[in-house]
Amino acid sequence: MNVILLGSGSVATHLGQALNAVGHNIIQVWSRNENHAAILANKLSAESISAISSLITTADIYIIAVKDDAILDVVKALPRLNGLVVHTSGSTDMLVLEGTSSEIGVLYPIQTFSKSKKVNFEQVPIAIESNTNNGLDLLRVISESVTQKVIQMNSVQRITLHMAAVFACNFTNHLYVIAQDILKQQHLDFDLLRPLIAETAVKVKENDPIEVQTGPAVRGDNNIIKKHIELLKNNPEYLELYHLFSQGIINASYKK
Amino acid sequence: MNVILLGSGSVATHLGQALNAVGHNIIQVWSRNENHAAILANKLSAESISAISSLITTADIYIIAVKDDAILDVVKALPRLNGLVVHTSGSTDMLVLEGTSSEIGVLYPIQTFSKSKKVNFEQVPIAIESNTNNGLDLLRVISESVTQKVIQMNSVQRITLHMAAVFACNFTNHLYVIAQDILKQQHLDFDLLRPLIAETAVKVKENDPIEVQTGPAVRGDNNIIKKHIELLKNNPEYLELYHLFSQGIINASYKK
Repeated sequence: MNVILLGSGSVATHLGQALNAVGHNIIQVWSRNENHAAILANKLSAESISAISSLITTADIYIIAVKDDAILDVVKALPRLNGLVVHTSGSTDMLVLEGTSSEIGVLYPIQTFSKSKKVNFEQVPIAIESNTNNGLDLLRVISESVTQKVIQMNSVQRITLHMAAVFACNFTNHLYVIAQDILKQQHLDFDLLRPLIAETAVKVKENDPIEVQTGPAVRGDNNIIKKHIELLKNNPEYLELYHLFSQGIINASYKK
Repeated sequence: MNVILLGSGSVATHLGQALNAVGHNIIQVWSRNENHAAILANKLSAESISAISSLITTADIYIIAVKDDAILDVVKALPRLNGLVVHTSGSTDMLVLEGTSSEIGVLYPIQTFSKSKKVNFEQVPIAIESNTNNGLDLLRVISESVTQKVIQMNSVQRITLHMAAVFACNFTNHLYVIAQDILKQQHLDFDLLRPLIAETAVKVKENDPIEVQTGPAVRGDNNIIKKHIELLKNNPEYLELYHLFSQGIINASYKK
């Protein structure tokens, strides 16, 4: 397929390289940042353009992979296009693309990317949505060319999924930040927890999380809970989280 | 060294096997559960005993690897011993062992174990403590025979470390439970998040967690935060966590 990429960040980079690797033809790369566009275009043997008015209007698919709050600016600047126009955002409604083309959609890779780190795209689930069956077919074909896991969902489902990811990943990472801070106060290194953190993630690869919960709350070990609360007495923020989680874990274990 | 194990759960099993594999001599295994003691003793070519009064009193080290709230019962039942007596608990003071022997201590493997899952003990940090230098030397030698990471710490440090692990692992696992619950409400499978969860844990293997935080809170994307709050309006428990974490992530990013 003839693909045009709008954006040059980590999603555009990893997705562009994955599409290029399986033989799709990336014909143009546009980015607000001219240098970044040139670097990515060079990797993909594509033309780099800095004026959005220079876009070829007859590509098969236009992939807008920019920050969520920049999508609307790109949409407003686009000429009327003939191909399928999609964005890659987990939390943006498909309908923001209305007016850019008769066929619009979403191609949301469910993974966190950083430019410098290689991604095995085959294992990245992709959520797709379109306003037409033809658009959906096209998204399925292009997505299945890079990953084994393609799932169609509507915008509400996708935004809910994105929110679930905020809980499971962003909030989890903040728990790591808190753990590191707690350790620092006792002059202990975060390295001590790294194997345990890795193992906690490994356990849910093949189990339901509720089946592998451990710790004082799920065991009902009030002695230890009291000790922890005592240790946290000068930290109201962590203490509040401690109470909420302990109660949440107990409630979840009843529902199990 | 001549080792006697008190306990037959997952810590006793994995630690016993690791010690046995590097040539230590497990001479007796005692457990409240006679069958479990026999099974573990058989694996370790040790004698299985069901009466605590049958303990040999001249081993080099006695390792009490039972549930935290059972340690005191074991301590009360022990005859006066001549070797070093240790427990393996993260959250129990060393001093509960006073009176069992002149030398007491702690050998706490910082990992979560389940009987059925193999553990690479070489990567498991072990925290040690003793009331004598001789006990500390002995604990260092035996710990370094199974892992490359041995660290001496006092009981307050160890209990703090255990609490940090509750945040980084037990609470994290509860976030996975919440994410799965949120997905279910939209008929979406938890599998969609598993690659993202794995990647989140991988990222902190070599980075400080605060350096790799992503998501709407750290980006200050109030549009998305508002959408998420709207989605959570009927779930006060998750909403409260959402607010606490978002504020915590913002505060942490200022401190960075």
